[in-house]
Amino acid sequence: MAKQKFAKDSLVIMTEMVLPNDTNTLNNMMGGRMMHLMDIVAAIAAQRHSNRVVVTASVDNVSFSQPIRLGNVITLEAKVTRAFNSSMEVHIVVIKEDLASGEKVQSNEAFFTFVAVDQLGNTINVPALIPETELEKELYEGAMRRRQLRLILAGRMKAVDANELKDLFKII
Amino acid sequence: MAKQKFAKDSLVIMTEMVLPNDTNTLNNMMGGRMMHLMDIVAAIAAQRHSNRVVVTASVDNVSFSQPIRLGNVITLEAKVTRAFNSSMEVHIVVIKEDLASGEKVQSNEAFFTFVAVDQLGNTINVPALIPETELEKELYEGAMRRRQLRLILAGRMKAVDANELKDLFKII
Amino acid sequence: MAKQKFAKDSLVIMTEMVLPNDTNTLNNMMGGRMMHLMDIVAAIAAQRHSNRVVVTASVDNVSFSQPIRLGNVITLEAKVTRAFNSSMEVHIVVIKEDLASGEKVQSNEAFFTFVAVDQLGNTINVPALIPETELEKELYEGAMRRRQLRLILAGRMKAVDANELKDLFKII
Amino acid sequence: MAKQKFAKDSLVIMTEMVLPNDTNTLNNMMGGRMMHLMDIVAAIAAQRHSNRVVVTASVDNVSFSQPIRLGNVITLEAKVTRAFNSSMEVHIVVIKEDLASGEKVQSNEAFFTFVAVDQLGNTINVPALIPETELEKELYEGAMRRRQLRLILAGRMKAVDANELKDLFKII
Amino acid sequence: MAKQKFAKDSLVIMTEMVLPNDTNTLNNMMGGRMMHLMDIVAAIAAQRHSNRVVVTASVDNVSFSQPIRLGNVITLEAKVTRAFNSSMEVHIVVIKEDLASGEKVQSNEAFFTFVAVDQLGNTINVPALIPETELEKELYEGAMRRRQLRLILAGRMKAVDANELKDLFKII
Amino acid sequence: MAKQKFAKDSLVIMTEMVLPNDTNTLNNMMGGRMMHLMDIVAAIAAQRHSNRVVVTASVDNVSFSQPIRLGNVITLEAKVTRAFNSSMEVHIVVIKEDLASGEKVQSNEAFFTFVAVDQLGNTINVPALIPETELEKELYEGAMRRRQLRLILAGRMKAVDANELKDLFKII
Repeated sequence: MAKQKFAKDSLVIMTEMVLPNDTNTLNNMMGGRMMHLMDIVAAIAAQRHSNRVVVTASVDNVSFSQPIRLGNVITLEAKVTRAFNSSMEVHIVVIKEDLASGEKVQSNEAFFTFVAVDQLGNTINVPALIPETELEKELYEGAMRRRQLRLILAGRMKAVDANELKDLFKII
Repeated sequence: MAKQKFAKDSLVIMTEMVLPNDTNTLNNMMGGRMMHLMDIVAAIAAQRHSNRVVVTASVDNVSFSQPIRLGNVITLEAKVTRAFNSSMEVHIVVIKEDLASGEKVQSNEAFFTFVAVDQLGNTINVPALIPETELEKELYEGAMRRRQLRLILAGRMKAVDANELKDLFKII
Repeated sequence: MAKQKFAKDSLVIMTEMVLPNDTNTLNNMMGGRMMHLMDIVAAIAAQRHSNRVVVTASVDNVSFSQPIRLGNVITLEAKVTRAFNSSMEVHIVVIKEDLASGEKVQSNEAFFTFVAVDQLGNTINVPALIPETELEKELYEGAMRRRQLRLILAGRMKAVDANELKDLFKII
Repeated sequence: MAKQKFAKDSLVIMTEMVLPNDTNTLNNMMGGRMMHLMDIVAAIAAQRHSNRVVVTASVDNVSFSQPIRLGNVITLEAKVTRAFNSSMEVHIVVIKEDLASGEKVQSNEAFFTFVAVDQLGNTINVPALIPETELEKELYEGAMRRRQLRLILAGRMKAVDANELKDLFKII
Repeated sequence: MAKQKFAKDSLVIMTEMVLPNDTNTLNNMMGGRMMHLMDIVAAIAAQRHSNRVVVTASVDNVSFSQPIRLGNVITLEAKVTRAFNSSMEVHIVVIKEDLASGEKVQSNEAFFTFVAVDQLGNTINVPALIPETELEKELYEGAMRRRQLRLILAGRMKAVDANELKDLFKII
Repeated sequence: MAKQKFAKDSLVIMTEMVLPNDTNTLNNMMGGRMMHLMDIVAAIAAQRHSNRVVVTASVDNVSFSQPIRLGNVITLEAKVTRAFNSSMEVHIVVIKEDLASGEKVQSNEAFFTFVAVDQLGNTINVPALIPETELEKELYEGAMRRRQLRLILAGRMKAVDANELKDLFKII
C-alpha cells in the first residue's frame, strides 16, 4: 500500500439532475436527498484514497441556503482533505446550475468523515494525504481544528484542550 | 393559526427495515441513506408544528458509531424542540433493533433545523413551542446554544457574542 | 424463546410522506403503494413478536375509500392480534393527515397474516400472544373468525364447519 | 364512448424480474412488492376498459403459498371480469418462472376492484363488459358473488340478503 | 439441454405505466429509462431461450421518434431472433398507448444482443433457434446482416468481408 | 443566445457506485442501468450546450465487453461533439474502477443524439459547436459520418448518397 497519496488523486465529480421524487410539493429538492448524494460522492473519494471499503463516521454542520429546483443540475465535487490513522475527512462542494440560464452558484459545502474498514469491519490504517495547492493546504490545516470541534461536540474532548480552536472561538 | 403548540404534538415515529439498496458491499447501511430518512421524519415533525411546507435550513453535526446491518429495523423519533420566528429545531433519535435478538440500542441522535415557507417560498412565522416534560425543557434550553453555534460556524456571529456557548467552550 | 408475549410489544408505527412516484396522474396515492407499506410495517410487527424472519401468508380484504394526496402524511400502526402455531395475524390501521389543516382521518384498516420461518425457510412455532386492552381482546377473539373465513375462501374449510362465522353470516 | 367492450380487450401482461430490493434477507420476494405490481397491472386493465383514470377501491383476500426467489421471473396477467356502473372487477393471475429450469407455476390469484373517475375525481360510468370464453363467463358470474361478499365484509350488506353467496356458505 | 427451441417460446411481454420519476421537466419519458426497460424485457427473453443468466453484449442503433407522456402505458414485446453459439439477438418492439383515447402506436424498435454465462461468468453455448412465422424467418435472416454490421462498427470485421451487408449498402 | 459554444463547455462528469438493485444475480451491473445513466449524463451535456430541455433522438450501437461488479465505481464523461440545427451528438466514455486495486479501465463508449425543444415540445435551433483539441476535432469530423449511418439505418438515406461513409465501408 502507498504510504502517502496526493489530495488530487481522490477528487470525485458527480453530476445529477433533480428528478420528481427528489422534491417536495413546492418542487424544491429535499435536504435529505442532497445529503444522500453528498455521502455517496464523499465515500467514493475516501475509497479512492484508501482503496478500502469505508463507513461514514460523522457529518459536520451543513447549511442549506439555496433552493434547488426540479430539473436543476447539481455538481458535487469531493476531495479528501486529510487522513488521521484510519479516518479521512472529505470536503464536498455543491454547485447548482440552472440549465435555461446557464447560471451556476455554489449551493452547499460540507465535511464528512469516513473510516476505512477491512472485510471484517475492523478499522484499518490509510495512507497519509499530501496537499499541494493553496486550497488543499488550507483545508489540510483546518482539518485538525474541525476534528477538535467534532470531539468536543461528541463530548470526547474538553474545550480548554482544543488548541486549534482558539482562533475560531477567540478564547483568551 | 394557533399561537402556541406543545412539543408532544409534533412527535413523529418512523420505522423502516434496512433493504439491500440501502447498504454498501459489507451489508452495512450507508450514512447518507440514514440522513435521508432523518430529514423526512424531521420535516414531517416541523410540518405538524407549523402546518406549512418546510425546507431544510441546516443539519448539526451527526456521528455514526453503530453499524446498522441489512435486515435490521430502525425507528426514528422526531420532535420539535423550539421555534424561532419562521424556523424550528427538530431533535431526532434513532434506535436500531436486531430482530433475531430483539436487542435495541440508540444508534444516532441529530438536530435538523427547518424553515416554514408559504406557496411562493417566502418564510412565514410559526407558532411558539411549549415544552412540558423535563427532557423537552432541557432540549428547549439547549436550542439557543445550538443556534448560536450554528451562527458562529456559518460565520454569521462572533464567538464573543455567543453568551449561551460560554459553558460549552469554557470561555473565560 | 419466550413462551408468550404481549400484544403491545409488537406495536410498530411508520410515518411516511406521499412522494411523486407514489401517485397517479391525478396526484392520488396508488393503492398498491399503500399495500406495499402495509406489508412492511406488518412484517416488522410479526418479526418483533417472533424474533424470526417472516413471510406474508395472506392479506384479507382491504378497501380504499379515502383519496390520499401527494404531500399528505400517512401513519401506519401495526400490532399482532393473535398467534397460531407458526402464523401471526397483524392488524394495521392507516391514518392520513393533511399537513395544511392538521386534519387526521382513518383511511384504511387491514389484516395481514405472516408465517415465521427459519434460515432454511421452514415454518417454525412462535410465542402465544397475550391481549391486554379491550381492543386487543376483541381483535384476538375476531382472529379465529377471520381465520375461518380465510380457510373457506381458500377452499380449505367448509362453511358448515366454520362455527365462528355463524354470527357473521347468520346461518340458521 | 363504447357502450360495451369485450373482456379480452382489457388483457394486460406484465413480466418482471425479481431484483434485490424486492426481497427480504432470505432472498424471497416480499408480499407487499407483489401487491404493488398486481395493483399496477390491474389498474392498466381497468384503464383500458374504461379509457379513464382509475383508483383502487378494494382488494379481495390474497394468499401467498409459493416463495418467489431473487432472480425469478414473474408474469402477471390481468383482465376485467365485469363492470358495475363506475366500478370494475379485475382478475389477476401470477405465474412464477425459474429461469434455470424453465419451470412455471401459478403463484397467486387475486381480484382487485377499481373505480373510474373524471379529472375532478368524481366517479363516472364505464362500458358494460362482454365475456366470451368459458373462463370469462365463469368469472363474470362469480363477480356478483364476490361483490356481495365485499359488501358484507365492509358492513354494507346483510348476509341474509346476499343471495349469490348462498352456495358459498351453504346457508339453508 | 434442448438442442433447439422455437422463437415463440422466448416471447416476453412487459406492460408499464410511465411514472413521474421516469420523466423530464416536460413530462416526457426519458430515453434512458426506456432503454432500461428494453434491456430487462430482452434479457428475460434471452434467459427463457437459454435457461441461463445472460449479460448484455451490445445494443444496436435505437431511435426515439414518439414522445411518450407521463401516465401513458407502454407495452414492450421481446423475442429471440437467432442464436449464435453463446450469443442471442433479441428483437424488441414498443407500443405506446394513450389510455384516454385508447390509441396505440409503435414508438420504438430495437435489437439487443446477450451472451449466456455460467455461474463463473464464462460464456456457454445455447440452443439453436427455430423461426416459424414469416416475420420470425425474416428477423432470423436479418440477424446475420446485423451481426456483421456490429462487427464492422466494433472494428472487428472489414466491410469488404461483410457479404450480408452488400444489399444494405449497395456495394458494387 | 450564443451563436457558438466550445465543446469543453458541455463536459459533464458523473461518478456512481454500483448498488445492489443495479445488478443481476451474478452481481454484475445490468446493461440497461448503464444506458440509463449514459442517457442522463449525455442529456445534461446537451442541455448545457443548448440551454434548453432536450429529448433523446437516437442511440448508436453500444457494446458491453467489461463486466462491472457490485461495489465498482463508474465514471461517465459526456461532451457534445457537434451540433446540427436543433440536434446535438454527444460522446460518452465510461471508466470502471475497482476500488480495492485502484485499477481503471474504459468499459464503454457511446454516441447519443438529442434534440432541443421549447416549452411546447417543438424543436428549436442550438448554437454551433467549436471543437478545439485534436480529439474534439476528430469527433467533430466523425459526427457527419455517424449521422449518415444513422440515416441509412433508419431508412431515411440511401447508402450511395452517404459520401462520408465511403471510407468506412470501402465502397468503390
